[in-house]
Amino acid sequence: MSEHIRIVLVNTTHPGNIGGVARAMKNMGLSDLCLVSPKLFPHPDADARASGATDVLESAQVVASIDEALADCELVFGTSARERHIPWPLVDPRELAAIAAPLKGKAKVAIMFGREDRGLTNEELQRCHHHVHIPAVESFSSLNIAAAVQVISYELRMAELADQAGEKPQWGTQWDIELAEQRELELMFEHLERTLVKIDFLDPDNPRQLMPRLRRLLQRAVPDKVEVNVLRGILKAVERKMESAEKNGNDHV
Amino acid sequence: MSEHIRIVLVNTTHPGNIGGVARAMKNMGLSDLCLVSPKLFPHPDADARASGATDVLESAQVVASIDEALADCELVFGTSARERHIPWPLVDPRELAAIAAPLKGKAKVAIMFGREDRGLTNEELQRCHHHVHIPAVESFSSLNIAAAVQVISYELRMAELADQAGEKPQWGTQWDIELAEQRELELMFEHLERTLVKIDFLDPDNPRQLMPRLRRLLQRAVPDKVEVNVLRGILKAVERKMESAEKNGNDHV
Repeated sequence: MSEHIRIVLVNTTHPGNIGGVARAMKNMGLSDLCLVSPKLFPHPDADARASGATDVLESAQVVASIDEALADCELVFGTSARERHIPWPLVDPRELAAIAAPLKGKAKVAIMFGREDRGLTNEELQRCHHHVHIPAVESFSSLNIAAAVQVISYELRMAELADQAGEKPQWGTQWDIELAEQRELELMFEHLERTLVKIDFLDPDNPRQLMPRLRRLLQRAVPDKVEVNVLRGILKAVERKMESAEKNGNDHV
Repeated sequence: MSEHIRIVLVNTTHPGNIGGVARAMKNMGLSDLCLVSPKLFPHPDADARASGATDVLESAQVVASIDEALADCELVFGTSARERHIPWPLVDPRELAAIAAPLKGKAKVAIMFGREDRGLTNEELQRCHHHVHIPAVESFSSLNIAAAVQVISYELRMAELADQAGEKPQWGTQWDIELAEQRELELMFEHLERTLVKIDFLDPDNPRQLMPRLRRLLQRAVPDKVEVNVLRGILKAVERKMESAEKNGNDHV
């Protein structure tokens, strides 16, 4: 069982698909399902397609935002069909499993699936450390959402079965600090954005791709808790310095 | 495209599942579908779930017996959920793909899927060279038939792609910018260190593990040239802000 894996479905339209996802998850030993503003849930179509995985449906969390869905997760994958504006670290399902399976007992991993017709938005995709792409043929690349969950859950199960031979630690070594949770990362990014505006580096009226680029850089490293605290400490030091300089300026007026 | 692979569905009950199978096949580059005495076909539910893979449905052969379905095939796999009476050569989907993918252009390979409720009969399974088992959890081992076809087609596609694989790009995607050279990184770290001293965050007499931690974080992400320029731009903006604040202070002295 991979209880450290959370499947997050964003704005799913068809309840039958939610049932299909629940069945695919249970087949492969997953149980943590989180639904962000599903169109219709609970629904008899979900129960029918779940075909015995009603326990997964019953214990599913329904939340209003991806912030709630991801808050306590340390690592986030988002499914992406298309080439994006800014390239983002991209893995296939097998590589996802190679990264995520060894984090059992160490970190919570979210895998986000988007709307049936439009997938995830760019903003949602920028919340992810990695994007995952199922290598379908280019001319017909959109999988049914339950089929996509099935493939990824299957790879996680294969990795878990292979892994039972020997566990491989994060970054190939015993790490000294726990990974940061999403809520800590988000607070850090908000703090960073405020500070960049204060030092006149980020123009709120013309932000361009600055924050996505910084997100992509730092998320690629998957920061631990101490690293996030150090970054926030630096931001606070910048603010303190500016305030004291302003204060001195005012003293002399 | 794996035109040497035939998917054979035996006595499928729900036409929606046939549609789901067609979609899964087309996603992964398969097109040869053979239906042995389906209960309802053609059917609007099949078209709906096929979601654009109607060409696979339209070209599907409908036959009355597995003899007809398998006649021109050299190698036959049958999906099997349970332990059988007589042990039979058993592969997982990845092993199936390792056997079947290289036979492209050399042999026709059939993969048979049984009824939704009872799978394949013993007699049908004995027609197979190998059995294939998707390693679901034992307590909930029955996959939806379209999901099972998805997993096996995915493995065939992965094997085909691995076969064509040349070099894999950095972070799995076409990156937009070249990676930073070490000298650029070192200049950035020197700049960072100077700035941290200026904002009184780093005490040169007691530096502790601050710079190593920041190095480890940023190096883990392997920054590209634009990312390094952005970081240096931020450092310059901090310096400029401090200088102008100091200047204002001095003007008033």
